[in-house]
Amino acid sequence: MVRGAPMNDMYYEDFQVGQRFTSRTQVMTRERIIAFAEEFDPQPQHVSEEAAAASNFGELIASGWHTAAVTMRLQYESAFSRMVNGGVGAGIEKIGWPRPVRPGDTLQAIVEVQQARPSKSRPDRGVLQLLTTTVNQHGETVQTMQGIVLILRRPS
Amino acid sequence: MVRGAPMNDMYYEDFQVGQRFTSRTQVMTRERIIAFAEEFDPQPQHVSEEAAAASNFGELIASGWHTAAVTMRLQYESAFSRMVNGGVGAGIEKIGWPRPVRPGDTLQAIVEVQQARPSKSRPDRGVLQLLTTTVNQHGETVQTMQGIVLILRRPS
Repeated sequence: MVRGAPMNDMYYEDFQVGQRFTSRTQVMTRERIIAFAEEFDPQPQHVSEEAAAASNFGELIASGWHTAAVTMRLQYESAFSRMVNGGVGAGIEKIGWPRPVRPGDTLQAIVEVQQARPSKSRPDRGVLQLLTTTVNQHGETVQTMQGIVLILRRPS
Repeated sequence: MVRGAPMNDMYYEDFQVGQRFTSRTQVMTRERIIAFAEEFDPQPQHVSEEAAAASNFGELIASGWHTAAVTMRLQYESAFSRMVNGGVGAGIEKIGWPRPVRPGDTLQAIVEVQQARPSKSRPDRGVLQLLTTTVNQHGETVQTMQGIVLILRRPS
């Protein structure tokens, strides 16, 4: 695990399958949960306690897209910012939200390198497949996400 | 296509493979692009013209997570809000961002029903696989997303 390490120092060759980056934590406040939902995902379970109580979920929970956006921030700080010239997100393979995120929950992202291979089309790049697991303060998984990132290879 | 139709009137049985829902449009302003990026995705290409000019992208573009969140809003209004008691997002199968979103671009979401089947585990629910395509003002695709939604079946 790499924490508080220097920025922008890693090429494709510095990543290995199985390597993990653990982020800082971030609290999900009621205010931000509701504000995000009002702008982007105004389903009843996300916008107020009253509407949520009458919904399928019975309580106020964060939009999955809010959890995904916060996870992006946490994985940026812990892993993407380490990549020389930045990594380029090439798409998401899968996102799941196995448990709800509630107001006051503290989230943390663990980014794991699942696959690494040189790019066929761009010889100066490598391709990383990352599995990012977002956990709450009880260590329970609230989101899993698989993504593909293009990253510079070390100049020979 | 269904536009400006009444809310909360559709059960699983009312959706058919090939059916499409077209959303309203939404402008992506420079201010919201930067504010979203500062909170969730502070990569250089998203936070300022100056930083973006020196990045892989060479210009300011929206975070893919901002496009995804705006798409959620547009597909909520056009499709999810039509579902009796609301649909429950059961996960994302894939997201791709084939073209950048620039300040001033106008986005629109087209939600298409790709598959429909009764739920095996919950006999009162059906499962819809949706393909949501987000296009800009030139009709170019800026995001594709496949998602799974659980929806109530019509009581017999």
